[in-house]
Amino acid sequence: MTPQIPLKLLNKINSPADLRLLREDELPLLCSEIRQFIIEVISSNPGHLGASLGAVELAVAIHYAFNTPVDKLIWDVGHQAYAHKIITGRRDAFHTNRTYGGISGFPKMSENEYDAFGVGHSSTSISAALGMATAARLLNGNNEQHIAVIGDGAMTGGMAMEALNNAGVSNTNLLVILNDNGIAIDKNVGALREYLLDIVTSRAYNKLKDKVWKMMGGNTSYGKNSRAVVKQIGNALKSTILNKSNLFEAFNFRYFGPVDGHDVVRLTKLLHDIRNIPGPRLLHVITVKGKGFEKAEQDQILYHSPGMFDKTTGEIIEKPCKSLPPKYQHVFGKTIIELAEKNPKIVGVTPAMPSGCSLNMMMSVMPHRAFDVGIAEQHAVTFSAGMAARGLIPFCNIYSSFMQRAYDQVIHDVALQGLQVVFCLDRGGLVGEDGPTHHGAYDLAYFRAIPGLTIAAPMNEAELRHLMYTAQLDGKGPFVIRYPRGRGLSTDWKKPFMEITAGTGRKLRDGEGVAILSIGHPGNFAAEACDILQRDGILAGHYDMRFLKPLDEQLLHGVFKKYNRIVTVEDGTINGGLGSAVLEFMAAGNYQARVVRLGIPDEFITQGKPEELYALCGFDTDGIVRTVRSMLNS
Amino acid sequence: MTPQIPLKLLNKINSPADLRLLREDELPLLCSEIRQFIIEVISSNPGHLGASLGAVELAVAIHYAFNTPVDKLIWDVGHQAYAHKIITGRRDAFHTNRTYGGISGFPKMSENEYDAFGVGHSSTSISAALGMATAARLLNGNNEQHIAVIGDGAMTGGMAMEALNNAGVSNTNLLVILNDNGIAIDKNVGALREYLLDIVTSRAYNKLKDKVWKMMGGNTSYGKNSRAVVKQIGNALKSTILNKSNLFEAFNFRYFGPVDGHDVVRLTKLLHDIRNIPGPRLLHVITVKGKGFEKAEQDQILYHSPGMFDKTTGEIIEKPCKSLPPKYQHVFGKTIIELAEKNPKIVGVTPAMPSGCSLNMMMSVMPHRAFDVGIAEQHAVTFSAGMAARGLIPFCNIYSSFMQRAYDQVIHDVALQGLQVVFCLDRGGLVGEDGPTHHGAYDLAYFRAIPGLTIAAPMNEAELRHLMYTAQLDGKGPFVIRYPRGRGLSTDWKKPFMEITAGTGRKLRDGEGVAILSIGHPGNFAAEACDILQRDGILAGHYDMRFLKPLDEQLLHGVFKKYNRIVTVEDGTINGGLGSAVLEFMAAGNYQARVVRLGIPDEFITQGKPEELYALCGFDTDGIVRTVRSMLNS
Repeated sequence: MTPQIPLKLLNKINSPADLRLLREDELPLLCSEIRQFIIEVISSNPGHLGASLGAVELAVAIHYAFNTPVDKLIWDVGHQAYAHKIITGRRDAFHTNRTYGGISGFPKMSENEYDAFGVGHSSTSISAALGMATAARLLNGNNEQHIAVIGDGAMTGGMAMEALNNAGVSNTNLLVILNDNGIAIDKNVGALREYLLDIVTSRAYNKLKDKVWKMMGGNTSYGKNSRAVVKQIGNALKSTILNKSNLFEAFNFRYFGPVDGHDVVRLTKLLHDIRNIPGPRLLHVITVKGKGFEKAEQDQILYHSPGMFDKTTGEIIEKPCKSLPPKYQHVFGKTIIELAEKNPKIVGVTPAMPSGCSLNMMMSVMPHRAFDVGIAEQHAVTFSAGMAARGLIPFCNIYSSFMQRAYDQVIHDVALQGLQVVFCLDRGGLVGEDGPTHHGAYDLAYFRAIPGLTIAAPMNEAELRHLMYTAQLDGKGPFVIRYPRGRGLSTDWKKPFMEITAGTGRKLRDGEGVAILSIGHPGNFAAEACDILQRDGILAGHYDMRFLKPLDEQLLHGVFKKYNRIVTVEDGTINGGLGSAVLEFMAAGNYQARVVRLGIPDEFITQGKPEELYALCGFDTDGIVRTVRSMLNS
Repeated sequence: MTPQIPLKLLNKINSPADLRLLREDELPLLCSEIRQFIIEVISSNPGHLGASLGAVELAVAIHYAFNTPVDKLIWDVGHQAYAHKIITGRRDAFHTNRTYGGISGFPKMSENEYDAFGVGHSSTSISAALGMATAARLLNGNNEQHIAVIGDGAMTGGMAMEALNNAGVSNTNLLVILNDNGIAIDKNVGALREYLLDIVTSRAYNKLKDKVWKMMGGNTSYGKNSRAVVKQIGNALKSTILNKSNLFEAFNFRYFGPVDGHDVVRLTKLLHDIRNIPGPRLLHVITVKGKGFEKAEQDQILYHSPGMFDKTTGEIIEKPCKSLPPKYQHVFGKTIIELAEKNPKIVGVTPAMPSGCSLNMMMSVMPHRAFDVGIAEQHAVTFSAGMAARGLIPFCNIYSSFMQRAYDQVIHDVALQGLQVVFCLDRGGLVGEDGPTHHGAYDLAYFRAIPGLTIAAPMNEAELRHLMYTAQLDGKGPFVIRYPRGRGLSTDWKKPFMEITAGTGRKLRDGEGVAILSIGHPGNFAAEACDILQRDGILAGHYDMRFLKPLDEQLLHGVFKKYNRIVTVEDGTINGGLGSAVLEFMAAGNYQARVVRLGIPDEFITQGKPEELYALCGFDTDGIVRTVRSMLNS
């Protein structure tokens, strides 16, 4: 439900047109109301709190100063866009944020005309804005403005740099707003971060620039020697040292800033001023993640997406979870340390997700062996390949949907060279509330086509441990271990390590007539389904394949000899995944059986609770039961 | 055959150890001999001439100044590494370069211990070198040097920037050598290019820096005002304007250069000098692509990989080709212009391959509508998506194996939003002499998993034209057209445009008992196979599926009702491609047939002539004939 709090100004804002009717001096109050509204709603309906609190003034100032939606505004990633959503007609729908059937947690073109381009993954905004600006120039002579708002973390993603390189020679109406808060989901790292910090901490950076310039050319009172030098230096100096003294100016952008991103009135004036300067421009804005909510400012990592919290104190509302099984992420974090303590060759790599994937545990106890390389999936993989080429065994942990960014590097730098990199593919399958941009739906299909990869998916926490142990044994080659977001099944997961021979599945239950072949966590749904079916006297066999590649051919020969009805179950696209591999095996072996493949169908799956989405796709427990019954009846 | 030319010095060089026995003043002669040797061999055995001629002195100087192979040298891309290959024990094997069974055209770890890391795709070298340097620090305390040689073109690739960002805070022994020749395969474009040109053309850049610094702080003769200003400016100025006045210094690299990359003696001394400076360093070296061979210097694009040429005059030896069918690339280049003349919404995009894919034709006649965005596949796709979001229809032409770089952007920015971008996937399938790094083997499998894509592959030039015409009609959504490197089949290809309904194949030949389902160019092998089989009285049906997605289900129902033996033929991995799709259809329709899938098996395929590789994989004409016979006999 939308909260009933007094929002004097906000309640009148149903679109940016309403916003632009306000006086400038009313904007601070509006920002305060928006902030209050975000806190109120997100406290009971979890979402991305911190980034959005930090970008309230930015959203208000941009819509106030620009003529959206004619002018196009693109938010990079989109975690920070709640204020934007609220003032573009979605205030009353905001309580449905990230829920099944509700509004998306990210800007989404089909949802609202003010969402100029859909986002979710990092570092796309400059490319998209440049494309739109280029199109505008071709279509109607470049009248509209194009604004990309990108964080300092997202700026480290390679494609943002590719876009700067292209945009710098484009002569389009492009304004990049660098939302510099020093943090992505975790603290931003890398040379660029240091560089921005340098600019910001040299408080008088721009004044200095002016002063030097005046001293060099604008003021001749320092005597004729000085004038001679200045003359000699001439234009070369101007362009090389002054105009290009800044990283972004090196990319041929006009650089403005840094400015306080929470001074909404000044920000508005500034945007007005630079709005009509032609060509590519970059405005460097300093903001505070979690701004205006004490706890969120203090612990910016925790309050990136804090779950439920007390809207007044900020205290996180913990669900009683003592008896809950751990998250797969927790098991990964603990296990890599345990393994690394014994095997000095193990190192850990994450592209900017240390807390999300739990590599932060290793980073704190063995910092020299765990690397956060920034939002840089491509680099993360080839950096890992380089380490493997020298004999280390990197565990490179990347979310499945972000691994799409490093597909080429896995093929070209790791698999082709047979290097022992262990890819821990976190958030494989349907991730839930983040929706279609973040579902790890394609990995089984896209990795299965690559020669030389071992691809495994554990059905539970203990299996994850065993697979991690196995992958770091000598001579294993490239190894993918794919597991879902969230909790496993058992609090009793910390079993002694055991090697699992690559390409061996396991029989969980004998059956008659019909067998279920599962891979990964959905094997648990299959197990439940078998229980339910058994109550009706239906004995379905159940086999946990464990490995997509190599397939357990011995197991499959047995299955195809014994059963003539087979259901495959996976949390990935049915096009090209386990089900397809089983069909390929069947064709090669000239077996005949009725095979039904359950998994993610050939469409983009919406947002919602994982359970809602499993049911939607039909591979939850009920879906499996239904499928088996229907096969037996046909 | 290795040429028998007098090579006084080169004939003694069997490894860099031999090289290091030479006096410095002998190095220019050695370089001249290497250049002569490269020209001699490549004139009759085609390879990457221009880049390698430009990097002769670099290769010699690096091996002379560093202790390879203990120190690790990584060549980005590897086109420029022939001199490196020749002086690291491969002089006598060099005439086998790029041939089946011969040495690779790229550095390759398994081939030679001096090839520290395998390359082929662009922009990987800094990441790999950083990984190796990091490993060295962990394993043995950082004693070795790590050198990445990267072109100014490759530097525009996003992952190079991701690597700089990470390396700048790494404190590893990393030397990046920026081999700046202003050209990749085509002329390098973008802001970075302009920036480097600025540095180079400001001849006295470094002297200027010194002079300013001296004037500001080192000399007080300009009076007390000046001193006061200098004091006030203080350290902030030093760090911000002087130390960080350079793009690479912004990434916390120590910058040296620019220097002449053809002065081998000076280069050697310089490398000696900076060898032991700790931390990340960048040496900016200016070279000329094609250096020392007049024609190659004059036409750097043509002589990137010129085919056979006269070793004295440089004249290209043209094969008589009047009656040869055109290259698919030529058909693309001509057709996009023809379409764009009628449809103002069409634009063209290429990431740095205008001459390779023939978009250069459109760039010359409608430059404002054809974009070379630099080596930047990720950006190319999202830039195209941005244009499509505003109503243009971009034809984004990317080589299949490079599209692996933009997989996420195709999913996240194009397919998910249903934007009408036409991906022209050039060099799909086995590309030949470039080998495993460049084969476009995986695209059918990796794209088939993505919802909402239409995926087509023409069997010949006329079909390519029709598909391009179809893809630009209103409302088509994301559309992939995949075609191979090289020539088609017919000189009579310029037929009137015809729409091909998505998801419709065509029956080419009726048969009995056995049917061949093909997609793309290998359909021609299937047609030949049918002719051969017919002579023996075997009537194989032949169907050109044309679309991998959507599948022509009506056609397939007919096929499965009529035939009980089916062969699928595709120039892509048999894991997950057309054959798998056909098996999925068969399972869903509950058909039963013997299906054999021909295509690229689940292994990395070596280099060689395309025909050699087709035969190796068994989907050439003979392979298809053999398969059909064996199916009929079993």
